[in-house]
Formats: sequence, structure tokens, C-alpha cells
Amino acid sequence: MEDFDLVIRAGDVITASDRMTADIGIRQGRITALGERLGRGIREIDASGKLVLPGGVDSHCHIEQLSAFGIMTADDFYTGTMSAAYGGTTTVIPFAAQHRGQSLKTVVDDYRACAKKAVIDHAFHMIVSDPSPEVLDSELPALIQEGFSSIKLFMTYDNIRVSDEQMLDVLALARKEHAMVVVHAENHGMIHWLADKLLQKGYRSPKYHAVSHVRLAETEAVSRAIQMAEMLDQPLTIFHVSTEGSMKVIRAAQDRGQRIYGETCPQYLFLTAEDLDKPGVDGAMWCCSPPPRDQEDQTAIWRGLANGTFQVFSSDHAPYSFDEHGKLARSKDPSFREIANGLPGLELRMPLLFSEGVRRGRIDIHRFVELCCTNGARLYGLHPQKGTIAIGADADIAIWDPDMKVTLGHDSTHDATGYCPYAGMTLTGWPVTVLSRGEVIIDGGACHAKRGRGRLLLRPAGDAAKPLGKLPAELDPARNFGADVL
Amino acid sequence: MEDFDLVIRAGDVITASDRMTADIGIRQGRITALGERLGRGIREIDASGKLVLPGGVDSHCHIEQLSAFGIMTADDFYTGTMSAAYGGTTTVIPFAAQHRGQSLKTVVDDYRACAKKAVIDHAFHMIVSDPSPEVLDSELPALIQEGFSSIKLFMTYDNIRVSDEQMLDVLALARKEHAMVVVHAENHGMIHWLADKLLQKGYRSPKYHAVSHVRLAETEAVSRAIQMAEMLDQPLTIFHVSTEGSMKVIRAAQDRGQRIYGETCPQYLFLTAEDLDKPGVDGAMWCCSPPPRDQEDQTAIWRGLANGTFQVFSSDHAPYSFDEHGKLARSKDPSFREIANGLPGLELRMPLLFSEGVRRGRIDIHRFVELCCTNGARLYGLHPQKGTIAIGADADIAIWDPDMKVTLGHDSTHDATGYCPYAGMTLTGWPVTVLSRGEVIIDGGACHAKRGRGRLLLRPAGDAAKPLGKLPAELDPARNFGADVL
Amino acid sequence: MEDFDLVIRAGDVITASDRMTADIGIRQGRITALGERLGRGIREIDASGKLVLPGGVDSHCHIEQLSAFGIMTADDFYTGTMSAAYGGTTTVIPFAAQHRGQSLKTVVDDYRACAKKAVIDHAFHMIVSDPSPEVLDSELPALIQEGFSSIKLFMTYDNIRVSDEQMLDVLALARKEHAMVVVHAENHGMIHWLADKLLQKGYRSPKYHAVSHVRLAETEAVSRAIQMAEMLDQPLTIFHVSTEGSMKVIRAAQDRGQRIYGETCPQYLFLTAEDLDKPGVDGAMWCCSPPPRDQEDQTAIWRGLANGTFQVFSSDHAPYSFDEHGKLARSKDPSFREIANGLPGLELRMPLLFSEGVRRGRIDIHRFVELCCTNGARLYGLHPQKGTIAIGADADIAIWDPDMKVTLGHDSTHDATGYCPYAGMTLTGWPVTVLSRGEVIIDGGACHAKRGRGRLLLRPAGDAAKPLGKLPAELDPARNFGADVL
Amino acid sequence: MEDFDLVIRAGDVITASDRMTADIGIRQGRITALGERLGRGIREIDASGKLVLPGGVDSHCHIEQLSAFGIMTADDFYTGTMSAAYGGTTTVIPFAAQHRGQSLKTVVDDYRACAKKAVIDHAFHMIVSDPSPEVLDSELPALIQEGFSSIKLFMTYDNIRVSDEQMLDVLALARKEHAMVVVHAENHGMIHWLADKLLQKGYRSPKYHAVSHVRLAETEAVSRAIQMAEMLDQPLTIFHVSTEGSMKVIRAAQDRGQRIYGETCPQYLFLTAEDLDKPGVDGAMWCCSPPPRDQEDQTAIWRGLANGTFQVFSSDHAPYSFDEHGKLARSKDPSFREIANGLPGLELRMPLLFSEGVRRGRIDIHRFVELCCTNGARLYGLHPQKGTIAIGADADIAIWDPDMKVTLGHDSTHDATGYCPYAGMTLTGWPVTVLSRGEVIIDGGACHAKRGRGRLLLRPAGDAAKPLGKLPAELDPARNFGADVL
Repeated sequence: MEDFDLVIRAGDVITASDRMTADIGIRQGRITALGERLGRGIREIDASGKLVLPGGVDSHCHIEQLSAFGIMTADDFYTGTMSAAYGGTTTVIPFAAQHRGQSLKTVVDDYRACAKKAVIDHAFHMIVSDPSPEVLDSELPALIQEGFSSIKLFMTYDNIRVSDEQMLDVLALARKEHAMVVVHAENHGMIHWLADKLLQKGYRSPKYHAVSHVRLAETEAVSRAIQMAEMLDQPLTIFHVSTEGSMKVIRAAQDRGQRIYGETCPQYLFLTAEDLDKPGVDGAMWCCSPPPRDQEDQTAIWRGLANGTFQVFSSDHAPYSFDEHGKLARSKDPSFREIANGLPGLELRMPLLFSEGVRRGRIDIHRFVELCCTNGARLYGLHPQKGTIAIGADADIAIWDPDMKVTLGHDSTHDATGYCPYAGMTLTGWPVTVLSRGEVIIDGGACHAKRGRGRLLLRPAGDAAKPLGKLPAELDPARNFGADVL
Repeated sequence: MEDFDLVIRAGDVITASDRMTADIGIRQGRITALGERLGRGIREIDASGKLVLPGGVDSHCHIEQLSAFGIMTADDFYTGTMSAAYGGTTTVIPFAAQHRGQSLKTVVDDYRACAKKAVIDHAFHMIVSDPSPEVLDSELPALIQEGFSSIKLFMTYDNIRVSDEQMLDVLALARKEHAMVVVHAENHGMIHWLADKLLQKGYRSPKYHAVSHVRLAETEAVSRAIQMAEMLDQPLTIFHVSTEGSMKVIRAAQDRGQRIYGETCPQYLFLTAEDLDKPGVDGAMWCCSPPPRDQEDQTAIWRGLANGTFQVFSSDHAPYSFDEHGKLARSKDPSFREIANGLPGLELRMPLLFSEGVRRGRIDIHRFVELCCTNGARLYGLHPQKGTIAIGADADIAIWDPDMKVTLGHDSTHDATGYCPYAGMTLTGWPVTVLSRGEVIIDGGACHAKRGRGRLLLRPAGDAAKPLGKLPAELDPARNFGADVL
Repeated sequence: MEDFDLVIRAGDVITASDRMTADIGIRQGRITALGERLGRGIREIDASGKLVLPGGVDSHCHIEQLSAFGIMTADDFYTGTMSAAYGGTTTVIPFAAQHRGQSLKTVVDDYRACAKKAVIDHAFHMIVSDPSPEVLDSELPALIQEGFSSIKLFMTYDNIRVSDEQMLDVLALARKEHAMVVVHAENHGMIHWLADKLLQKGYRSPKYHAVSHVRLAETEAVSRAIQMAEMLDQPLTIFHVSTEGSMKVIRAAQDRGQRIYGETCPQYLFLTAEDLDKPGVDGAMWCCSPPPRDQEDQTAIWRGLANGTFQVFSSDHAPYSFDEHGKLARSKDPSFREIANGLPGLELRMPLLFSEGVRRGRIDIHRFVELCCTNGARLYGLHPQKGTIAIGADADIAIWDPDMKVTLGHDSTHDATGYCPYAGMTLTGWPVTVLSRGEVIIDGGACHAKRGRGRLLLRPAGDAAKPLGKLPAELDPARNFGADVL
Repeated sequence: MEDFDLVIRAGDVITASDRMTADIGIRQGRITALGERLGRGIREIDASGKLVLPGGVDSHCHIEQLSAFGIMTADDFYTGTMSAAYGGTTTVIPFAAQHRGQSLKTVVDDYRACAKKAVIDHAFHMIVSDPSPEVLDSELPALIQEGFSSIKLFMTYDNIRVSDEQMLDVLALARKEHAMVVVHAENHGMIHWLADKLLQKGYRSPKYHAVSHVRLAETEAVSRAIQMAEMLDQPLTIFHVSTEGSMKVIRAAQDRGQRIYGETCPQYLFLTAEDLDKPGVDGAMWCCSPPPRDQEDQTAIWRGLANGTFQVFSSDHAPYSFDEHGKLARSKDPSFREIANGLPGLELRMPLLFSEGVRRGRIDIHRFVELCCTNGARLYGLHPQKGTIAIGADADIAIWDPDMKVTLGHDSTHDATGYCPYAGMTLTGWPVTVLSRGEVIIDGGACHAKRGRGRLLLRPAGDAAKPLGKLPAELDPARNFGADVL
């Protein structure tokens, strides 16, 4: 009788801290043994000469989601998660997005239903745009306790952003319930004001999107969010950091000892605002928020990946079909303001960073695993079930050929976006075989996953979301006449 | 025939940069000569053994003004300016405060009328709370050109604060018209949220005012204001800086080369939040915004005065009568939120800084003159007419006895507030004779100024208000596809 | 037939990134399997309810070493390594210390001979005090290539310190040979000058040792060392950081992207200069360099352990017998200058940090493993053989009872120092069973290791010692007229 | 009878803080009156339409000095001071340079004798290269008290530099005697090491001088000097700051409240290292230490002039004849190491800054006066006798035609160097008439000063040189077991 359902033989097994040549034994979807010469498996995969990495955790992606502008993403949970799997990612955390007036409970139920098409495991961050008393007092606590332990807030976008006071309400609640808060931090007023001015002066084409999303708007909002989190001693993750300025603000908070986490994405390493400078509306293909910046910011972001300022590298996958109106604008000659914001990234996130980061020596392979797999799981309460290769963990594994070269074209990826922002690049290193819970879902360039095999992950908040338990001087009762505010 | 209307003999004449033993010759209200042995004057004052300083310029004070809460200051233009004169100040810049819906032009006219009672010269900062198209397109440009060349914005207070977008509108206009913008920088949401929480928990007494005005709310708003100013390359003065944190943000902007000016006030050197911790509503006497902080912040503020981070030391005089309801609250047992915010300071501003700063060796006498007289005039377009002792300048002069000791009581000062926040302190150094345009208005402890002798000062913007003329990368057309936004 | 020589059953296995309940299978001294239910072992240890951690790597300790002052440490390689083992440490990196005029090769040979008494595995940092042409051109390259891939330099101590130019020589060589450089960074002149002044004024007792080693001397030297390393693009580890100031300098270098590593030690977390303030020469027991500082510095150092500024937590074990002359001074009433510098720490390093760091929630258990085990191995080229629990690694393992309480006395530890600087503390958590290469060397409170069983570890330089390959602007030939200096 | 020896009529009189249209009345070499219409003078100068500025104070220049390399400057006290006068400078502070083994008293006497040729007033900084007990205990205190109240130390140059301990000795003495210490801050080891490497590799031409004086060597030494000054609470002036990095270190010290002053020079605003890149030895004409850097550093230095980081703008005039050997090298094909270091600057210092600073709007005219005249006098104890226009001050005055254009050639200046590093530039603004103690010494492009008319200025230390009186924590007896070291 075989000892294992599956054995992956003799690969170079990599975790965030270790490297070992080992067999991996899998039973009932979980890793049950690691060893030099494990017993037989019903199925065996020869991984010699290959890297065996944890499946990726993409903790920031938009799938089958109606945007703040009322536009639907190109990907549904089937195409989106399949695309992720092709790129070596085996867990995604998209959003359950509340629009104003909606019950958060209903929203989560709706997204759970949509996600039944998924081919890989998934969880949801809850986007809260309307923190009404009902939401704060009843729905949110219940949902967090049920296992939806992270909340996203927007500081910009007209229909979805929260005020500073609402943000404090959510931060205080999250502190009490030990939920993680993640934030899209851009100053709404600065961007809106600039966009108005640009449009008044006739600057309408997609590239002016990048001009309107001024760097300082990001620095400002990152700084404000961190100060609100500091006031309440609540951990916070800053999403999609694109500038050196924001990075410095985050680093300074980490220096002070705050639990502030930073995330960045491929678009801030491999694209610049120049990419939006295309004829007609073609630039729309590279429109996202924050926008790609310039070479100097790219260099800084690479530095932040290497020196530990960033904990997470995610995709912010937000796929919109490109058409004659740019991206889903309602009129024929749309201004940059009418164009959907977002880029695909689920599939290429890890191959891009592997090729340009690991292969070029900017980061080592352990940091790669940490950024793409382990830390996303840690921050959001999925570790050690996801994000690593260890006894007891789900057998979510990607076998990489570190030398395989792939030249990207607009149809290289399997999402439904219809174009590829990185077309033309040649990458070195590719995930050739991908397993989810011990099942080979990608192999030989094909997807073998059954629609709907993915499972919803309920997750308690991780340690990363715990407050330090030490209020700043400002709110320390001992220094403030005994006032115990929280 | 006499050469001068008045000669001040043999004093130790001090300016921001110089010290000389000299006679000062005055004709028709102006200084027309400085010399070792000037000819005779119709009147002569022996200043030997005394310091002869420029009259003070208090560029931040509230006189005969209806607050955002609809409460009238205790001082009108007669008592307020008389009190200032007693303290060696000969020019004041209070506010013409627009409430929402009002015409700015009308507001300025009204305040000009009120100010006809003043005994010293005065100008107005315009508080803009409602930057409507009418105000932005027509009233403000006209008023700036007429000589009201500075605008104050509030980032907090319900009825008067402006949004980020409105602030950008005003900054952009100021840039075009070369007006100075000054700002009350505290984050409204953070304070409001905390105050709500405090009141919900029953923390109602005046000292909790200090708790609600959390340090981080000041740092946050200072940082935001500076970033908006940076975006538009517009000079900005940060009013009443009370914390080390805000000071660092200002210094960092100065390091980068931005034209950001910092102001602080006596309450942040000589009071702490502990002063609000009194029985009943007595603490209301020390309620102001931002509130006094602690010893560490005081030490930092002193350092900022010495090392040039602050350009101006003003009073933020905001006098409210103290009564059984605290300060003008409408109910009997008011919460801290109902209490008027503000302290008197016009009269003691300079004696306090002279005694504790100059006499104790924390700053030198030239820096004292710069902070209290010259820089206020420079920043707001009154130099060289005001703020110094030089040929051609108005003969606004204060003769100080550097060794005179005064112990402060609640009735030591001549404003209409009815109490003194610094009662009990003994100061060394006092302005014994004060001249405005060559007229002795204070002498022998008495005021000799005729009600209404003060004049309105119209002033073009000073050099300090000029943009650098170099947009940040963010808005430099050469780096942004030619987009010329401003 | 048994599958393993030894199986550790069902412990909570912890690595720098993972936590799993697993059995560990060991064969021929190496970990060959991890699994849920491994086969049988010749010997089995039940670790249920226990933590199973990698054996510690103490990468900074002085054993059987003649100090710069010519004083021998209390411990030889037998007592020192046994003491380490009792504390859960299974690898040590003491020094092979060159005194001026000595051949480095001979020095290394001598220390290798001494170390034949060791009970655990060990490597050597080479202390270079005399970088003569012979040493630089011949001995050092050969020794590095042989596997002595790290060099220690002293910036202070009369007989052993190197000049800035000598330091640059060594850094340049290390860059070429990919060796790590570690540094004792204190400004010699500042300390020497102050010590002279103190002694001239009659301040002789041990506590003045702390006064003479002024904080600024550390900040200065750390800053200078980092700037020299930056000039040559050479990685550098700063040993025994004791102050917030030095920590900031290190963090700033990491921010810029430099490969600068920071180490701190128990004495900077648990002792202060006050501990030296004892009657007579008793304070000598707490004399070390840098000296313990104060509470504020302790708090900062804890923050640096949590936020990643420090990579390594080592002991700087430097044991000297305490006697009537203080510590080995040659006269009866010695001044602080005559007293040997150093404290024991090999045994308590990990228990102290576990108890006060992990148990009190200041750092998590993964960070503990990283700081005490994995990173020391990584920085100095011992990973993955040492410092982790992974397939193929040496079976160096410590089984901890996380709840065991131990109250420290002067005879609690097994080194030869004769006193304990932490006597009186009660710690929670203790390594109850310790294995080295699969052999149980500590168990039941007794040492079962045979004298001399420890092996010398030859090690290639790790990745951490590789230069970034990007020279600073200063020495980039492209920006300097083609000058290619290195 | 005339009231004045001389009246300067109706000029635009400018001081560091003021601007006035006024007549200046002069008697017996001093300014005795300023006024709108002063009485008659024996001589009268019409300055209408002109700027009337204080004569410049050049507080850093080498005249008739033997360098550390034993090379004599091209200028003696006659040519040097005449050249200064042509450029609007009326006071110079060159050096009395002690070489090792010399008596400082003798050195000062010698330089006093040399200076008897001077045409303008002058003082001496004492260069101390050999702080022997005799010098420290006896000569220095006596000389400081006599009026030589500033000491220069070199941290580099073989024959003249002091060790850290010697530097502390001098700082401690200066603190006691209230003398200012000024420092040439470059790390000797870094430069020496690099120069060796460059020469070994055959990089010999003048431009490699710039490469060897690596930026980090300056930052390092500035940082070290400031930390030593901080340790002893002693004010310090950092000479010739050339890089953004050093500037930040200085600014940080000012932020902390230290009395650290910064000086920069024309070569760091108007030249770059590229200027050294000339055929043969021509580059030697631009060799100075620190060397000119690049555009980015220039921009930073301009920012530091505007924002107050720098207090003084001096010339560091160090003129050496250019010949076929470069500058005074002893061999025919000299390496950069053999070339004398230094540039002329006494004459053009102020015209350069006026033209490119004031006229181009980078700094205002008051800041110009402060940087070039007033602050040099203040820092070194010459104020208010020198450096300003005020009653009682010496009538050292320069009348500038703000619109005069001058194109510089190699023979435009009146020093003895023989070339002009700024040849080719066209400047706007020139000092057309210059007075020293009421005597017109420059007018109509000619020098009317009698050789030897200049006087030696003895000066007590100014307030700027006073310690703050607050020791850092490190040496505060209250925090250090009562140890009172200083």
C-alpha cells in the first residue's frame, strides 16, 4: 500500500526561511511528510532540478466585482482564479464590496455565492463604504467572528470613500475585534481638484490620469491613515504603494514601532507613467490607481522590497476589457476620468518578480516566497494553512522551472482582460506544475481544475492584526487625566 | 528751531541684526535720523540705560470677532489695541472673518468700521470660510490688490472649516495674486471623533478639551496643509504650532526648500495641559486650540524659536470672559465642547518672551526682535514701514527697562478678559514707554492714546508670500506630458 | 528495523517562518524526515506539549581568548561550549584573535587546537589587528577560502584597534573575497580622552567605566564604519549595539539599501549603567563594552528587535573571574580602566530573550528563532546546515518547556565565570533537552556530551556577505572619469 | 563747519534686516549718523540709485601662508587685502598657522608682522596643529584673552591634522575660554587610502584629486566633529561645506539645538568636478579641498544658503600660481597629490553671490548681507564694529551698482594668482566704491589704499561661541553618578 496520495520527489524545496532538497509527501490534500527518501505515493512527480515553492497567496485582487463607478471586472471567479493558478497562485483574497446603503451581510453572502465558481481557495476582504450603526454594531463584529477578519477602506473615489471620522470608527472597531484594516490611501481632494483643472484645460487623454493622481496625494493619505492608526494603536496595511515618498512614511512608522504593513504590486516595478502616453485611448490599458510612476520610484520600490519595508507583493488585479472607448467608458471619446482603473496581474505577479527580482539578484528566493506567499497568509490569518510548505499545511505547491523563458504577448495569460500590460517582456522562470490541496490543477500548460473546486477560507485574525496594547501618549489614560476613550 | 519733533536719547537701540547706542530723531511720525548726537527735539526722552526696540507686531489675534461658535470676544478694538500697546505692541493683524454665505467684501468693510476705535495701527487677515466662485473670482482678487494680502483658512471647526479642495482653490488663487495663506491646522475628524467618545464616556470637564485635541490631529493637518502647499508651490504660514511633531514636519519642509513659515505663541511655552486640571469649570480659563501640551513639547518649542524653525511669535489673543458657565457656555454645567476657545495674550506676549527667553539666555535680543516685531511685518507685507527701527520707518518704538520686575495678577493687564492665564509669574523686563508713529501712547503706566488714532494698514504681499516659481515634479509640465495645470 | 536513529515525536516544531506539529526523524546526525507520523526510531523522545526549536547559534562570544589587555577568559572551550549547550545553543562562533606581529595563520591554528575540547560545533571569526601586507596578500585570502569567512575589526582598544586606512584595506579585501566583516565600533579617542579626565578627577570605581564609554563614541564609530563600508560597497555587521543613536544610524543605512546588519545582546535589554553602581569593586561584575545604558535605550533596542533593525541576538560572552581586585586587575584598588571588560552570556542568552521577549509578547516565536538561530547561521555561511529545522540540516535541536520557571542565582549557570549578572531574575521557558548532530547532549539537567565531540565548521561566505555590486556615486567609474579604484 | 568728514547721500542702505533710503554720516572713520537729510560732509558721495552695503567680512582665507605641504600662497597681505577690497570686502580673517613643534605665540607674532602690509582690517584664526601642554595650558588661553578668539583644526593633511583626542583637548579648552573652533572636516584615512589606490592604478591627472576626496570623507568627518562638539557642548563652525550629505548632518545638529554653524564658498556653487577635467595639468587650476562636486550638490548648497543651514559665505581664498608643473609641484609631470590645493576667491566671492544669488532671486539682499558681512562678524566677535551699517560701527561700506555687468577674464582680479577659476562668466552687480573706516579705498576701478593702512583686530569671543551651558545626557553629572568631567 502506498504511503501517500502523492509524492513530489527530490525538488529544491524553498520556504521563507529554508532551502532543502527533499521529497514532499501528501495525503488528503495536506502535506504530511518531508524527507530525504519518502515512501511511495499513488502518484509521484519528479521535481529534481526544479524549485518547489509554496503556492502563491494573492491578497489583493478584484474579481467579479462592481467598481465604485459601477463597472464589472472582466474576470469572474472562474476565469480569475484559473488565471491565478496558471501563475502559481493558489489562494486569492478578493473583495466583498459594500456600496452605500447595502447590508454588509448581504454583500458577503452575494460574493460567497459568486465565488462558488472558483478553482482555488479564497477569502474576502470586506470593503466597507457605509459604516452605519447597523454595520458597526452588529454586522461587522459578526462577520469578523465568522472569519471575515479584514476590512478595506477607501480614502478616495466618490461613491465608496469614508471620511476621517468613519475611518476612526472602523479602526476602533477593528481594534476591539482584532481585525486587520487595509487601505487605499490617496487624498481625494487633491486628485479631484487636479482632475478638474486638467479637464478644464482640455487635457483629456489617458496619460493625464497619471498626472491627476499626483504623488503627493498618495503620500498625504498614507501619512494621514498611519496617524489615525497610531492614534488608536491599530495595525494597518497600506495597499499598493507606488512612490518613494509613501514608502518613507511607512518606514518611519515602522521605525517608531507601529504595526504598519506595506504592500506593493508589479505595476510599480515594471511600468511607468510613460506607458500611458499612447495614441488615442490606448493608454487606458495602463490606467490604474495609483498610476505607474517613474524610474526613480521603481528603484525605491525595489529597495523597499529588499530591505523589509514591504511585507507583501500582490497584484491588485483589476481587469477591465479594452475597447474602442478605452476601458468601458460610456462615451466614445472619453476623458481619463471615465476610464476604468485597473490592470490584470493575478497570473504574472509571481513570474515577473521571480524573473526580475530573484534571477537578477535584487531579492533572494526566500524573500520572494515571503513576499508572494507567506506574508499574505500571515497578515490575513491564513498561516500556516496557506503560504508555506510545512507539515500540516494544505498541499498548495508550485513547481517552478527556474530557467524556462517565456515571452509575453497579449494572449499569454488566461484572464479575461484581453490584453497584457507587460506584453513584449521575456521572463525567466515559470511555474510549470501547480497543486491545490494536493490536486494537480496546472500542468503541461493546461488547467485541470474543476470549476468550483475552490473553497472559501474563513480565518480568524492573525497576530499581525493585534494591537500592540500600548496607546500613544495622546490617549494613554495615565497621561490624560484618566480619560479612557477606547 | 528744533530739528525733530522728538528725540529719544542714548538708548541701546536694537534691531533684528544690530545693536547701537544712538539717538533716534523723529519727525512727523517717522524715524528720520539715527545718530550719536542728534540735534534737539521738541520733546526729548532720555533712554539711557534702556533698551529701545521696535514696537511689536502681533500678527495673530482675535479682536471684536464673532467666533465660529457665534461667541463675541471680550475685547473690542479699543480695549484690545490698548492692551497691546501696554505690552509694547504697536501693530496688530486681527481678522476679518467671513461666515458661510457672507460676502467677503462686506465682511471686510464691517471690520474696518469696527476698527475705527483702535489706538494703534492694524491690518486684517481675511478668514475665508466660503470660497464661492464669487469670492474666488472677484472679491478676493480685488481685496488682495486693495491691500488685504493674507488669507486665513481653518481646517477644523464646523462652521468655518474648508475642505481640501476648497483649500487648494484658495492656495491656487493666492499663488496667482501673491497673497500669503495662513492656516489653523488641526484634523477635524480626529478631534471631533475623540470629543464624541469622551463625552459619551462622561468626560466633560475643561481638561478633556486638551485630551480631545490630540497632538496627532495637529501633526496630521500641518502635514496635509504643507503637502497641498507643496503641490502648488505656494508659501504658507502654520499658525500656533504647539507640538514637537508639527515642528518637525515644518522643519522638514524648510529643509526641502519650501517656503513654509512657522508661528508659535506664549501658551505653548508657559502653560501645559495640567493647567486645565482645575475644580469645576475653572480649567476653562486655559482652554485654547491647540491646547497647551507638556514640558517636552515646551522644550521643543523653545528649541524651534532658537534654531529658526519659527519665524513668528504671536499671541493668538482670543479673549473670552470667564463666568460661572466657564467661558460663555450657554448652559450651566457645560461640557468642554461648549466652552469658548481662547486666551488673552496681546499684552504679555512680549514681556513673557523677553523675561523667559532673552533674560534666561534661551534666545538673544536680536532673535527676540525678529520673532516679535520684524518677521511679522516681513511675512505680511508691512516691512520696512513696521517692525524695525530704521530711517523712514514709522516711529513705532518701545522703550524697555530690562531689569524691571513685574509680578502678574489677574488684573495686571488691560484687556477685557477679566483674568490672566499667567497670574503668579514674575517677569523681568518691561516696556515702560511706547510710541506709535512718534506719539507717546504708553508712559508712566498710563495710556495716552486717543481712541481711534490707529490707522488701517493696506499692504501689498511681501516677498515672503511669493512662490518659488518652481513647481514640484508632480506638476512640472516638462515632466507631465506638457500638462500646465496652474 | 527502525527507520531512524532518533525520532522526536509530536512537538510543536518552530522555524523562522513556520510552526507545525510534527515528528522529526534523524539519521546519522542529520534531519532526514519531518512528518505527521514518522516510523520508529532506535530512540524516541516525546516532545508533545513542548516547543522544538533549532539549536541556537551564538555568533559572538569570547572563549579561551587572550584579551587586548592580556587577560584570559574564565572559560575554555570545554566549559564555554558546555555552558552554551545548557542554554540551548549548539553552535558557537568565537574568535581567533591576532595580536600585533602575529601570523594570522598560526593564530588560527592555535585556536583550532584549543577548540578540540569543545562539546558543540564551532567556527571562528578572525580578529585582525595587524593587517600587514603578508596578512592581506596571502594569509587572509587563503584562510577565507579555507572556510574562515569572517573578519572582526576593533575600532578601539590600544593593542588591537585598526586605523581607518587599515579598515579600508580589510574591507576592500573582504569585498574581493566575499568575506563578512564584523566590527566593534566605538570611537577610541572619545573614550580614552574621557577616561583620562575621569581618572584625573579621581573617578575610579567601576561605574565610571560606563561614563567613559559615552554613547556618542558608539554612534560616531558606527557611523564611520558604515560610511567606509558604503564607500566600498561591502556588507558589514555592527556588533553589540547598545544605544538608540547607533540603531538609528544602522537603520538609515538599511533604508538607503546598504547591506548593514545589526546585532545586540542581552546586556542591553536587561541591565543598565545603574547596575555598575555597587560598593567597592563589585560593579566590575557588570563592566562590559559598550556598557549597559538606560531604560530608554533598552526600550529602543526592544523596538529594533521587533522591527527588523537587528538581525542577530548574540551573547558577546566574555567571562572573567570576579575577585577582590574586581576582575583580574593587577593591583588591589584598581581603577575602572584596569578591570577586564565582559560578561558571561552563552547560557542565558536564549532563555532571557524567550522569557522577556516571546512570553511577554514583544516579539513572536519566529522572530526569536530568526534572531537566535537562523540569522547567525545565514550571515556567517552556516545555513542551512545550522540554524534551522529542515531536511538535510544537522540535527541541532533544543526542546523547550515554554512554561518552566527558573530563578537565576549566581551558580545557576555552567560557565566558569563564577557569578551571574542576571541573578535574581525569574525566567519562564527553558531548553530541557538539547541535541547536537542527533546526539542528546543536555537532558535532565545534565550534560551528556563528551569533551571534544564538537567539530570545527569551515564555511564559505554566505549571500549576506556579498556586495550589492553597485558602487556609490563616489566610486562609480562612470561618474568619476573612468577611475576604477577597486 | 561741516558736520561730517564724509556723507554718503541717498543710497539704498541695506543691512541684514533693513532697507532704507538714507544718508550716512561718517566721522573719524565711524558711522555717526543715518538720516533722511543729514548735514554736510567734507566729502560727499552721491549714492542715489546705488545699493549701500556693509563692507564684506571674509572669515576664511589664506594669505601669505605656508601650506601644510610647505608651499607659499601667491598673495601676500598687500595683494590679498587689495584684491579683497576690490571685491567689496573690508575685513579678512586669514590664519596664523602653527606647524608642528612651533610656539603658537611666535607664530601669531610672525603673522602680525607679515600683516603690516595689509590695506584693510584683519584678524587671525589660529591654526593649531600641535596642541602640546605648553600650547594648551599657557599659550592658547593667553592668546584667546588677548583677542585671538578662534582656533582652526584640520582633520586631514599629514603635517597639520590633529587626532580625535587632540581635537577634544582643544574643544574643551575653547569651551572654557569661550573661543570659537572652526574645522576643516575631511576623513584623512579615506582620502589617503583612495589616493594611494588611484596612484597605484595610474590615475594621476588633476581631476583624480576630486575622485580621491570622496564625498563620504567629508560627511564622515563633519559627523565626527559634530559629535565631539556635542559631547562637550562646544560651538563649532564647519568650514567649506561642499555636499548635500554634510549639509544634512549639520542641519540635524541644528535641529537638535546644537550650536553648529555652517560655511560654504563660491567654488561649491559655481564649479563642478568636471572643471578639473582638462588636458595636461590645466585641471590643477580648479583643485581645491574639498573639491567642487556636481550639479545636485550645487542645488543643495543653494538651498542651504536660502533656508538658513549656512550662516557664512566665505572664499577659502587659497591662491597658488599656476605653472607648467600644475600648481607649484616640485616635479614636471606631477600627480594630483603634488599639486597645491586652493583657488582664489577674495575678490569675486561677493560679486558671484550677488549676481547669481540675489539677482536671480535665489536669496534676498538681506540674506546676502547676512551671509557675506554680518554673520562672519558675529561668529568671530567682530560685531557690531564690523559687518553692518549702524551707528558706532566702523565705516566699512561698499557701494554697489546693482546693474553693472562685468565679464570675467583671467586678469580681471587683482590678486597674485595669475588666473581666474570663473573666467568667462558675466556677472551683474559690482561694488564700485569701497570704504574702510571712512576712507575711500576703491573707486573708479582703482585702489587708493595705502599699503599697511589695515589694522589688526583683536576680538573677544562673540556670543555665538558660547556653550549652551547644558551638557548632553552623556556628560551630565546628574545622570552619571555625579561625574563632573569638564
